[in-house]
Amino acid sequence: MISPAGGPRVLGLDPGSLRTGWGVVEPAPDGRRLSLVAGGTITSPAAWPFPERLRHIFEQLADIISRHHPVELAVEGVFTSHNARTALLLGQARGVALLAGALAGLSIHEYAPAAVKKALVGTGRAGKEQVRAMVEAILKQTLPPPREFSLDASDALAIAVCHLHSRNIRGLGGRP
Amino acid sequence: MISPAGGPRVLGLDPGSLRTGWGVVEPAPDGRRLSLVAGGTITSPAAWPFPERLRHIFEQLADIISRHHPVELAVEGVFTSHNARTALLLGQARGVALLAGALAGLSIHEYAPAAVKKALVGTGRAGKEQVRAMVEAILKQTLPPPREFSLDASDALAIAVCHLHSRNIRGLGGRP
Repeated sequence: MISPAGGPRVLGLDPGSLRTGWGVVEPAPDGRRLSLVAGGTITSPAAWPFPERLRHIFEQLADIISRHHPVELAVEGVFTSHNARTALLLGQARGVALLAGALAGLSIHEYAPAAVKKALVGTGRAGKEQVRAMVEAILKQTLPPPREFSLDASDALAIAVCHLHSRNIRGLGGRP
Repeated sequence: MISPAGGPRVLGLDPGSLRTGWGVVEPAPDGRRLSLVAGGTITSPAAWPFPERLRHIFEQLADIISRHHPVELAVEGVFTSHNARTALLLGQARGVALLAGALAGLSIHEYAPAAVKKALVGTGRAGKEQVRAMVEAILKQTLPPPREFSLDASDALAIAVCHLHSRNIRGLGGRP
């Protein structure tokens, strides 16, 4: 979906094997700010067999894409600060998330977590609470408390915001 | 598909981000040995965008499952000998492979690579060529040369064979 301002509706994702945060952002009709469309957290209980957790993430994402019609997907990029076992678990959830986007025909963009934090807060070492506060300021919207709208969901919004800002800087969108 | 001998048809998988080996094995009609049904390699060119590589793996696996009707999936389990970056890449391919199995309703079983080698060759440090030779001996079938039937494909057959042996040992299959 292309918003009235001509910019793309973006799905941001913070994938994880237990919780996948998601958030949809688009340029507001005035073309000068960004609006929150929807967001939330896909939880896949640790007690489920792992393939069922992957299936749940995939099916929920396919549902979110069909409900909100994003045209671009922004997702946390490859990073190597985890140990190999954690990276493999994360990779499996991330692979399923990328697949859901590819099957829906979304254009897919990756941002390193530190780059997202730096773009929004000014430092790559910002905490999730700082990122959330900046997301609220940029979207001019108070988010529900973390027990209702998780820090993974606000991280996902941050990735979408970072992508829309970076897109404008690169001259791909926004008004002339 | 349940073979005439009553055992399950098993899809073995050796997932990777560039090459995913696959092989389908089932108990032969005489119930005393195992038969090769089909096998091969899914290659996803490194030049493709990563999400397209994942999509290709997923769609090829879905096609293999619909053509050969395995009822169980045996896949290399989590291991941590890789560095974090390699593990994340591998994890993404593996996640998509597990998802294809889960969406098709296959029961999914994981085996550590060293356990597969030990079960077939007697040592967890066996090379891929040794594994391939033992697969040929067990299936009583000469495989085409590696340039036609890759070492990843013979590894996938080894995982399927390991699963069927382990299944018999656990008393889950075979004839009384």
